[in-house]
Amino acid sequence: MEIPVFEDVLKAHDLIRKYIHRTPVLTSRSINQITGAEIFFKCENLQKTGAFKFRGACNAIFSLNEKDAQKGVGTHSSGNHAAALAHAASLRGIRSYIVMPSTAPEIKKKAVKGYGGEITFCEPTLKARESTLQRIAREKGITIIHPYNNFKVIPGQGTAALELMDEIKDLDLVMCPVGGGGLLSGTALSVKAINPGCKVIAAEPAGADDAYRSFHAGHIIPSVNPKTIADGLLTSLGEINYSIIREKVDDIVTVSEEAIIEAMRLVWERMKIIIEPSSAVPLAAVLEKKVNIKAIPRIGIILSGGNVDLGKLPFK
Amino acid sequence: MEIPVFEDVLKAHDLIRKYIHRTPVLTSRSINQITGAEIFFKCENLQKTGAFKFRGACNAIFSLNEKDAQKGVGTHSSGNHAAALAHAASLRGIRSYIVMPSTAPEIKKKAVKGYGGEITFCEPTLKARESTLQRIAREKGITIIHPYNNFKVIPGQGTAALELMDEIKDLDLVMCPVGGGGLLSGTALSVKAINPGCKVIAAEPAGADDAYRSFHAGHIIPSVNPKTIADGLLTSLGEINYSIIREKVDDIVTVSEEAIIEAMRLVWERMKIIIEPSSAVPLAAVLEKKVNIKAIPRIGIILSGGNVDLGKLPFK
Repeated sequence: MEIPVFEDVLKAHDLIRKYIHRTPVLTSRSINQITGAEIFFKCENLQKTGAFKFRGACNAIFSLNEKDAQKGVGTHSSGNHAAALAHAASLRGIRSYIVMPSTAPEIKKKAVKGYGGEITFCEPTLKARESTLQRIAREKGITIIHPYNNFKVIPGQGTAALELMDEIKDLDLVMCPVGGGGLLSGTALSVKAINPGCKVIAAEPAGADDAYRSFHAGHIIPSVNPKTIADGLLTSLGEINYSIIREKVDDIVTVSEEAIIEAMRLVWERMKIIIEPSSAVPLAAVLEKKVNIKAIPRIGIILSGGNVDLGKLPFK
Repeated sequence: MEIPVFEDVLKAHDLIRKYIHRTPVLTSRSINQITGAEIFFKCENLQKTGAFKFRGACNAIFSLNEKDAQKGVGTHSSGNHAAALAHAASLRGIRSYIVMPSTAPEIKKKAVKGYGGEITFCEPTLKARESTLQRIAREKGITIIHPYNNFKVIPGQGTAALELMDEIKDLDLVMCPVGGGGLLSGTALSVKAINPGCKVIAAEPAGADDAYRSFHAGHIIPSVNPKTIADGLLTSLGEINYSIIREKVDDIVTVSEEAIIEAMRLVWERMKIIIEPSSAVPLAAVLEKKVNIKAIPRIGIILSGGNVDLGKLPFK
């Protein structure tokens, strides 16, 4: 198993910088007052395709040699990785094959189609998704790009923290949510290489706490029947991701659903930007005082994405 | 009746620039594709207190001489002007008296209190609001600052377009919503002084079309029983505002409620920023093809504010 290092993040950034947005780092006086911290939000909700996933997808696709690229790429996903892969593929001018459960929301199908992805529908089971993708891979010779357990995707995701650390000095802590661990492992590579004294703590919904349990048990414990509003964080940790996380991450903490919704609302109301529930999980951990590292800590938080169904919001 | 001129906008900007945010100008590739225009959004939803109103309030308050300032300022309003005035007053270290109907939403009361405003409640009629404010003015000697029909407020609002024109050259058209006309009259002062060839067109909900009717009739027609989701645009034109608008504005067009909601949703989904319904009115006019000035027009749109009740959204 090949494990990426910080050098790979730097290479990724050189490769993808002309395709991605350098997203802004925003602050909120009132959220600082409420939390008693100084928080710097890296706004990947404003990234192309509305999520950090575009960074990893770009690095994977623009790293392919010409011959492989021409055969196309593929993945099975109904979320942000699918849209990111389809858009990155269209920028390189190659085909992308996205396997989706037939039950996927209309809005997600539309997004992938809009970015030029070719969708193959299958039964809504992991087995059907994997076998359908394998069949396409055999038939067309495409490169499968896993959403997080992938040697090129991880350093791509690490470029968000790279830009954050470049812009904001002397952070005490960098936080992000954890699902499969793509963002967390890439973030840890960047943070610990640039400032070893800066802590890296991930936050996870208590209702989908497999990364928390894996981290504290010392081995991967798969996610079983996760239940949370943070629909980007339902997956189990990848092996490459876990090997980086166990070595470089300082802690993983869990948060309640109520705190996720409260944190999401706070960002919407005070910052006037749209984030998806998964993005609100680190701020939820700060609100629930799960991270107490010093008096007024300087915290970098990566807001992972902003793709929400406006017809199904949790606010009352 | 004293009428402000462009020189007053320049003076206002010099006075208030250290208190306001220089808000970003954002663009959206997908909204440009949908509309067939090149649109530059001046994001006053990201202004302090969540609306452009903070500019005019700052100019009015920081223009007061020391003696008047120490007596305090006041207004009757339950909207963005109240919060803006309270916050600007607190920055100058003076008192603000806000008259609000007892029926005002809890969230608005909280905002004004949070900025340090002193609220006096009254019956929910215009007469009660005005007489209550007059009583406070007599008792305390405060300066009443009207939300839009005010010599200092208008040039303050004009600083948003001033910044927009400074940043984005060669605009064919600048658009904003129109309610009382504070933003529109200030915008027209700036645009026509900087680039007389650039058109200024305001958009108004068809359900609150008093400015549209006034503009085309050639005299002020008051707003009667307006009905629209754009709750910032219910008021009638002010006299100072109207005298600038009739001279400098090229057109006022109306839009449907459906188009307002569609435009609002488009900005939320594609740009991941929160705007209030009033802010969506100019984009609604572009979507409904109410402005057709050339093939691919370069349009500046002032997004007026981002204060919405997340518990009462119009999305399905």
